[in-house]
Amino acid sequence: MAFRAGPSRASRIGPVATLHPAPLRRRHHDRLVITLRPVLNILGLLIFGLGAGMLLPAVVDVAARNPDWQAFVISALFTGMSGLLLAISCAGELGSSLSIRQAFLLTALAWLTLPAFGALPFLWLGISYADAVFEAVSGFTTTGSTILIGLDGLAPGLLLWRSVLQWMGGVGIIVMALVLLPYLQVGGMQLFKTESSDKGEKVVSRSADLVRLIALIYFGLTMLCAALYWVTGMNAFDAVNHAMTTLSTGGYSTHDASFAYFTNPLTGWICIVFMIAGASPFSLMIQAMRGRPLLLWRDPQIKALLCLLAATSFVAAIYLGITQEIGLHEALLRTSFNFTSIVTTTGFALGDYTLWGPPIVGIVLMLTFAGGCTGSTSGGIKMFRFIVFFGTLRNHLRMMVRTHRVVSTRYADTQLTPDIAFSVLAFLVAYLGSVGAITLILTFFGLDAMTAITGAATAIGNVGPGLGDVIGPAGNFSSLPDGAKWVLSLAMLLGRLELFTVLVLLDPEFWSR
Amino acid sequence: MAFRAGPSRASRIGPVATLHPAPLRRRHHDRLVITLRPVLNILGLLIFGLGAGMLLPAVVDVAARNPDWQAFVISALFTGMSGLLLAISCAGELGSSLSIRQAFLLTALAWLTLPAFGALPFLWLGISYADAVFEAVSGFTTTGSTILIGLDGLAPGLLLWRSVLQWMGGVGIIVMALVLLPYLQVGGMQLFKTESSDKGEKVVSRSADLVRLIALIYFGLTMLCAALYWVTGMNAFDAVNHAMTTLSTGGYSTHDASFAYFTNPLTGWICIVFMIAGASPFSLMIQAMRGRPLLLWRDPQIKALLCLLAATSFVAAIYLGITQEIGLHEALLRTSFNFTSIVTTTGFALGDYTLWGPPIVGIVLMLTFAGGCTGSTSGGIKMFRFIVFFGTLRNHLRMMVRTHRVVSTRYADTQLTPDIAFSVLAFLVAYLGSVGAITLILTFFGLDAMTAITGAATAIGNVGPGLGDVIGPAGNFSSLPDGAKWVLSLAMLLGRLELFTVLVLLDPEFWSR
Repeated sequence: MAFRAGPSRASRIGPVATLHPAPLRRRHHDRLVITLRPVLNILGLLIFGLGAGMLLPAVVDVAARNPDWQAFVISALFTGMSGLLLAISCAGELGSSLSIRQAFLLTALAWLTLPAFGALPFLWLGISYADAVFEAVSGFTTTGSTILIGLDGLAPGLLLWRSVLQWMGGVGIIVMALVLLPYLQVGGMQLFKTESSDKGEKVVSRSADLVRLIALIYFGLTMLCAALYWVTGMNAFDAVNHAMTTLSTGGYSTHDASFAYFTNPLTGWICIVFMIAGASPFSLMIQAMRGRPLLLWRDPQIKALLCLLAATSFVAAIYLGITQEIGLHEALLRTSFNFTSIVTTTGFALGDYTLWGPPIVGIVLMLTFAGGCTGSTSGGIKMFRFIVFFGTLRNHLRMMVRTHRVVSTRYADTQLTPDIAFSVLAFLVAYLGSVGAITLILTFFGLDAMTAITGAATAIGNVGPGLGDVIGPAGNFSSLPDGAKWVLSLAMLLGRLELFTVLVLLDPEFWSR
Repeated sequence: MAFRAGPSRASRIGPVATLHPAPLRRRHHDRLVITLRPVLNILGLLIFGLGAGMLLPAVVDVAARNPDWQAFVISALFTGMSGLLLAISCAGELGSSLSIRQAFLLTALAWLTLPAFGALPFLWLGISYADAVFEAVSGFTTTGSTILIGLDGLAPGLLLWRSVLQWMGGVGIIVMALVLLPYLQVGGMQLFKTESSDKGEKVVSRSADLVRLIALIYFGLTMLCAALYWVTGMNAFDAVNHAMTTLSTGGYSTHDASFAYFTNPLTGWICIVFMIAGASPFSLMIQAMRGRPLLLWRDPQIKALLCLLAATSFVAAIYLGITQEIGLHEALLRTSFNFTSIVTTTGFALGDYTLWGPPIVGIVLMLTFAGGCTGSTSGGIKMFRFIVFFGTLRNHLRMMVRTHRVVSTRYADTQLTPDIAFSVLAFLVAYLGSVGAITLILTFFGLDAMTAITGAATAIGNVGPGLGDVIGPAGNFSSLPDGAKWVLSLAMLLGRLELFTVLVLLDPEFWSR
């Protein structure tokens, strides 16, 4: 379920351009050529906003009397000026609307250029541009894989910048998933175009309102999370940073040991709750805020997510209890924390679970593909696609046996059209195929099969850690060759943009006429 | 393209039961309950045939003065008697026709019981029943994974029995893929229901004729292959055995070193040609035999298969040429042989390619999923599904951008209905999902991630070797725990029956009414 925006209402993205609802625009699109000006105008404003965000770590570094503040001020000036120039030079199209093709282009360009600028402050560490871009892309896509070693000794500004990148990337993907993707019909997300549970009721009629509400909830939950972290023993800086990377299901930490640095088990359980919150549909949170919290519990995605986490965590905890000398609470905390971190595509680690036996490795490997709910900050395949797949597969098998019977498949209260089912299946195959393709490419950079497979899966799923000695939860992506880092950066973007948003751009026909 | 069997003609399976063409039966099926008698009658005859086949190795062992002949005679008597008893006790339904559900049930039961009986002679080696069944299932499904070590020292009868199992399994799958699966609409195979290139022309009107023609071509090609093997240096026994396991794309060898035992490069190239023949659509071979050989070259599956093999082999040969001190011909023979063996799901090995560098491992890993053409002895996903997937994905992406445009997808000269496209996509997701599920289960038996992943993929794809130290081309499945062997045996059957034939049986609704 999500937000209806019928042909009679205009959904706005940001203050500048109006995205006409899909049905209205599509009638006219063959008259249009791709005009870049409105796209570049919005892009400029987004880049400007990113530049402004760089001033936050600068202030922190100044307060900590760390000379690194210069890095952020210079980056901020360069980024802000670039954005402003771009926005102003294309400002003639102010107030114009975006076509489908322009919306696709803006989406891809925004997620390509913002990390490119966001990488600038990392260059002050003296690392290569490949490393800096990898770190920024991993941040902005809320993946959480890192090439930095020795986080505990880094300047506070840089640590904060990593968290800010994830936090901004997190709210960016929620807005994109609720406002844009359903209209672009990406991978079955047209399912969330119409209000399913109460048709006709206007939940939020205007996208600008929607964005404001999302930001409010996102900010509120982050503050709540930070407060609880602080209460259970984190210092204020760690609490704010980890709250930002928890809600965004990003997974960057300020410590090399990740969450194992914090010994209070309560901190771990709080993190689990807020990772799940970050992976829940924000449209439902708005409903909950408006007095309908029960919708959260009735949502098939949330149900599936919680069932998956409970089942795998319990089975694995029992296995750990049998094979290792630890108590049930400790075992359950370890398995639920790490599994929640993987499924919500956060990427925090509580210990090196790759050493806990083959079944744990097997479960983590499978969960790397899962993902949370759509309309959240989480990546991966996402629950609704599994629900749609299993529903349609069952019906398909039944119709093979009794061909005269036509069984209709439903998702919650919505009738699944063949179009949506096809879209979901095509996404699933494309997703798994992409993991295969990226795996193959990575082996050409000399990566062993295990690192290549799990590197591809963790990048496309925006999860964070892989498996194996190199990129496992105790490892680091720094030792990979630069080529592999570029490939993984592209894979993270491909996954974050739900594949199809990128793939449509590869078809020459997209650019014709 | 394949064989039309319109409602006016009866397609026969074997001499006993008539399978009415699907459209005719389906009208009546809701009046039917599953009657097991005709199913068990055919099953009994198949088991009887298997028992008769056991006399062949008995004769060879007698000729070699090897006391093992007793094993085969006793197994043959037990199997033959069981089959005969079953057939006779259910003979009342002679001449009756099979419903869709009965056809599904017969297919699954046949592939489950035949290897169970086929395993009996292996018990004489003193191995466990898990091992014996694994070896028989791997043989009958033409997978080629083995738990036997020291093949060079085994009795000739037992070696021949392994080859005979694969040879019978090979012809079994061709008949099933051409006669049964298109009517059962398994995984998009309904595409091969109608004659695509020349509508209306009766290529082969009756299934009995079809089976005879398939057997004739299969037998002829095997003899030709054996003769060429013999000419290029194999002894007669090796030539016959390897010809049987080449044409069936099975991959059992009479030597632990597999094809590396034979040093004549010409033998390798001959094998490549006949592996491709075994993985080609036998319906087209019938056409070729009837004077239309050009259809073979125009077939999209064969084109895709050859392009895939050529491209990967060349790239890998160049890589080998650069990184290793070998000539281009040697490099090309090694890569084409092993890649053809993997793609056609044969499973012969020419050297341990897992030591040739990460890119070779990466390519082999991807090719493990490929498979040859439908209507052949090969397993895996198969070329036509990739062709259908890429075609429909391209159209799907185009329609996302320009929604008013309806582009139709074609396969060769056939219009792809949404139903077929959906069926193919559902198969692809189910296939990859099954690999994931089997991987997970295998880790619970203590298998490391790499062995579990490639073990699942090689079993479901009926390929043969996996990757990693344990089950790689230089390894062996014998050291796996019994539980893992049972799981892999089921995975081989699941793959051989194209998943859906098994999955429909798991739905309680299949058994109702």
